[in-house]
Amino acid sequence: MTTPPGYRAHSPETLPDYLAGIAAARDRLGGDPARWTVREVGDGNLNLVFIVESPGGGPGGGLAVKQALPYVRLVGEAWPLPLSRAHYEHMALTRQADCAPGLTPEVIHYDADLALIAMELLSPHIIMRRGMIDGVIYPRAADALSTFAARTLFLTSDLALKAADKKALVGAFSGNTALCKITEDLIFTEPYRIAANNRWTAPQLDGWARAIREDGDLKVAVSRLKLKFMTSGEALLHGDLHTGSVMLTPEDARVIDPEFAVVGPMGFDLGAVLANLLINYLSQTGHEAAPGARDAYRAFVLGLIDAFWTGFKAKFLALWRSDAAAGDGYPQALFQGPAGQARLQIAQAAHMDALWRDAVGFAGAKIIRRILGLAHNLDFEAIADPSVRATAEARALGLARAMIVSADSFCGVEALIEAAKRANAQAVTLEG
Amino acid sequence: MTTPPGYRAHSPETLPDYLAGIAAARDRLGGDPARWTVREVGDGNLNLVFIVESPGGGPGGGLAVKQALPYVRLVGEAWPLPLSRAHYEHMALTRQADCAPGLTPEVIHYDADLALIAMELLSPHIIMRRGMIDGVIYPRAADALSTFAARTLFLTSDLALKAADKKALVGAFSGNTALCKITEDLIFTEPYRIAANNRWTAPQLDGWARAIREDGDLKVAVSRLKLKFMTSGEALLHGDLHTGSVMLTPEDARVIDPEFAVVGPMGFDLGAVLANLLINYLSQTGHEAAPGARDAYRAFVLGLIDAFWTGFKAKFLALWRSDAAAGDGYPQALFQGPAGQARLQIAQAAHMDALWRDAVGFAGAKIIRRILGLAHNLDFEAIADPSVRATAEARALGLARAMIVSADSFCGVEALIEAAKRANAQAVTLEG
Repeated sequence: MTTPPGYRAHSPETLPDYLAGIAAARDRLGGDPARWTVREVGDGNLNLVFIVESPGGGPGGGLAVKQALPYVRLVGEAWPLPLSRAHYEHMALTRQADCAPGLTPEVIHYDADLALIAMELLSPHIIMRRGMIDGVIYPRAADALSTFAARTLFLTSDLALKAADKKALVGAFSGNTALCKITEDLIFTEPYRIAANNRWTAPQLDGWARAIREDGDLKVAVSRLKLKFMTSGEALLHGDLHTGSVMLTPEDARVIDPEFAVVGPMGFDLGAVLANLLINYLSQTGHEAAPGARDAYRAFVLGLIDAFWTGFKAKFLALWRSDAAAGDGYPQALFQGPAGQARLQIAQAAHMDALWRDAVGFAGAKIIRRILGLAHNLDFEAIADPSVRATAEARALGLARAMIVSADSFCGVEALIEAAKRANAQAVTLEG
Repeated sequence: MTTPPGYRAHSPETLPDYLAGIAAARDRLGGDPARWTVREVGDGNLNLVFIVESPGGGPGGGLAVKQALPYVRLVGEAWPLPLSRAHYEHMALTRQADCAPGLTPEVIHYDADLALIAMELLSPHIIMRRGMIDGVIYPRAADALSTFAARTLFLTSDLALKAADKKALVGAFSGNTALCKITEDLIFTEPYRIAANNRWTAPQLDGWARAIREDGDLKVAVSRLKLKFMTSGEALLHGDLHTGSVMLTPEDARVIDPEFAVVGPMGFDLGAVLANLLINYLSQTGHEAAPGARDAYRAFVLGLIDAFWTGFKAKFLALWRSDAAAGDGYPQALFQGPAGQARLQIAQAAHMDALWRDAVGFAGAKIIRRILGLAHNLDFEAIADPSVRATAEARALGLARAMIVSADSFCGVEALIEAAKRANAQAVTLEG
């Protein structure tokens, strides 16, 4: 495994000396570097993550240091992965901070040679997914997520950017191929064929997995989504906008980990949010103390889906009707005057409907990959009883299949919420 | 006007000395450089073009030398245009030669500093547009154009390329922004508003031009096409695939001038071909000695439209069903066995239908810009009588408007041909 000159993977032992040499890090942590504590906490699949704290209690409280390894951490050196992902993550974080101020972690220091990003320590934030498994209500989540999506997607699209700036953005991210390939293969291909990486709750879901591998209509529809993901350069995507990439307190929300960033179709990010909320909703049966005990939380999750989409649409349209709509893609100059504005508004509504259908399809693909593919969600994984887990997963598979094959039939967010409720009450057939 | 060090615009006086220092050019021309003849023949809008011939009669007969100027030749220094367009043209020529052997001019020499490409002299080829105005039948044209389009588009798409190679292609052309901006503005925006560059047959078409500027449905539809052009990176486009970019003899066909190359939607190139054939068809009324004298040629042109699309579709599908379909975009691995193959074939047919509708819409946009925008076609321009010209142009505008707003209603190439025939017989209202 070769790495560029100057690269070395840090450890809790080596990190304090390195950070002590970085003025911004030293200032943030404060106190005596010899007394800084470092914990390696990376629970993701790809990278090292260190929490650095100073007993002196610097002004920012501490640092989170993320360092790319030249391979997939979960798998080891057998699966190399380029260090350049830190470069793309840093570019995306910077751009997203410009677009959506206050909704990303502050970057304190970036070291390209080390593929290392030092960020403010988000504390007492917890991962949204973890909170939702525990049934925690987050009043700010829908507003924060819809603002993040609306602003980062609109402001990096041809609706907001001059053509040359948009093409420069496309070019800047066109090298993030290794991370995109993971998305392309693990989401759109592997769950639909026999692949070494796949796993599912077996034997309960064996029949479901086989049916999906033999489902021609589904495989065509998911291949069309794959082609759309690979060809449709609408905006700079976060690329991995699931509830594990959101850190929350009751008062604050931040979106982290955009290393899968690429210029792609907006529906992909929107679908990631919808998919993970739907998964959480359908997983509640495995987390409640008694049947129905989580009904209020279920209603919160469905309300979150509604508020996310409704908020996204309103905020995106508000940007499109503001001075931010200075892009070359849909020139405002053609729609001057009351008649022009009225016609444009009809077109904008149709545009949002098309975006919704894209989001529904991509959400379906994101659900299936979390049940039959390599990377699963804790929402389902934390359900100990395999029959209970498989029942919830099978319901999600059925819903997701309809979302992919018949995205057009989900005429709005209410239709999706109704379908989720029906799925949650669905009797399913399991094996074994 | 600043140019990079080493750049100077050549003239017929300076070119022989330069070429004499290039072994490949010297070999191609043969004889004594002092006796080479040079004519500057650039009749395009952007560049210098020199024809260099040797009385000695070298093996290739001569050279065509194309050099970019740092501005738009037609307009002058008031409209700067980057020399980098020669870089993109050279890259595109090279790639297209790989994809469609024998259908591009052979590149003899490329000089990046001078933004200069020396190519084989295509002789006795003439420009397809010129031949079609003169009523010349080209038996090979449909086959050559459909082969060029099918091979260059398929083989540079996600259907043929590995994901990383496709993204590298996107990145390599993402800097051709200035040329793309011309496409974006002149095709999709300016004809639909008052713009200094616009011109049309006046006063006859004043009412048509005004109606189009006030047509909300049309402006929405053309803005959607613009956004698709700017976001949909399906394949490496020629970018300017009109009949002025095709050189023909009865036996040979070459596609030249891909300086507008960018990774974009396939329908844009296909629509360019359709648009220019339709324009020629509707212009015949201005070129025939007596009414009906060109009816046989009209039938040839409509047959060309049919054969181009039918040929393109067959060749594209044949590639998609061959070993060339090794791309990551639509994995063949999901469609193994007779059932899988049968399902894929249905999906491929639907894919071609969607591509057809894209092509129809883009063709409509290409027609309108040639009548109301900056750059016109000789097919119409060569009609001396303004009433005859305006009548033909108005018929084309009516057809084009339907193609843009109601692309879905043109269910196949037969429907487009029938619509063209109806348009050609249409009574139109002119002003003045």
